[in-house]
Amino acid sequence: MIYPNSKSAYKKKVSHANRGMNLETLINDANKYYLDNDIAIIYKKPTPIGIVSVDNNKSITKAYFKEPSTLDYQGIYKGFYVEFDAKQTLNKTSFPLSNLTNNQIKHINKVINHQGICFLIINIKSEYYLYKGDDLINFINSKKRKSIPYEEIAKSGYKINFNIILDYIKVLDVIIGGKK
Amino acid sequence: MIYPNSKSAYKKKVSHANRGMNLETLINDANKYYLDNDIAIIYKKPTPIGIVSVDNNKSITKAYFKEPSTLDYQGIYKGFYVEFDAKQTLNKTSFPLSNLTNNQIKHINKVINHQGICFLIINIKSEYYLYKGDDLINFINSKKRKSIPYEEIAKSGYKINFNIILDYIKVLDVIIGGKK
Repeated sequence: MIYPNSKSAYKKKVSHANRGMNLETLINDANKYYLDNDIAIIYKKPTPIGIVSVDNNKSITKAYFKEPSTLDYQGIYKGFYVEFDAKQTLNKTSFPLSNLTNNQIKHINKVINHQGICFLIINIKSEYYLYKGDDLINFINSKKRKSIPYEEIAKSGYKINFNIILDYIKVLDVIIGGKK
Repeated sequence: MIYPNSKSAYKKKVSHANRGMNLETLINDANKYYLDNDIAIIYKKPTPIGIVSVDNNKSITKAYFKEPSTLDYQGIYKGFYVEFDAKQTLNKTSFPLSNLTNNQIKHINKVINHQGICFLIINIKSEYYLYKGDDLINFINSKKRKSIPYEEIAKSGYKINFNIILDYIKVLDVIIGGKK
């Protein structure tokens, strides 16, 4: 994939030193890059918040964080509906499924059934993998383990490489290619 | 379209008396119906909120409402990316474009370019229309008027009928049929 309008702001991210940075920041940078270069439209959903009270100036004076029942990132790529979550684990041998709520797992199932592209971006052992929702659901259904071993992620997942940004869209091209 | 699992909770909405109810409530009811019956996955995005301060119990003590730059409803239907906004006007002759921010209009353009299905649901004169994003953009580009006349909405738009719920997915079938 050729990016028509690469900007130096993103190039900073290529340096190895920055690869340990917060996964959410990397994804947000990638999404900004995709949006600026008209490659895809992917947004982080606003955190669901319950509002308790608002004052006369329409300022919120009391509110609370709600538990998410969908995934954090949502958007469109080449006409496909895309939804995913970004997960970072310090665990070096496996990804604990406790990182996902039951409602999120149900939601992933639904999105797949409606032909959406649903996945996790997992940061484990300084590596980044796109792990498909189908593989996640199959793992949950067939195994009794409460975490996905690193070997399974490395085998079934798609390694995401840095190309100016953490370039997960490149992996999506492979997945969509298989879908068409 | 046949709904496999119609529930009395929705049937209440059929009565004429309820048709004047808040458009957002009608859309939320429709979306719940589509979700419960596994027809589509459409959610209202959480209102974007800027958080200023959080106390020790993770309760939010100060926050503010941000201006939306995308549309309120987003989801997936038959594999298609769907995004729309619901707009109610008391004006009987036209729909004022001031109901949309410039960023929202830019966003509609982008979603269309990326092959998403983007539209407004407009409630005008006790009627409900699905007005396609393409028609909206064409109107904005070709006319100098600051509001869309009722006649244009009734001519180019698709009238949405009540079928247990405000059944906008039925109209989407027509639009998607033309897309395939």
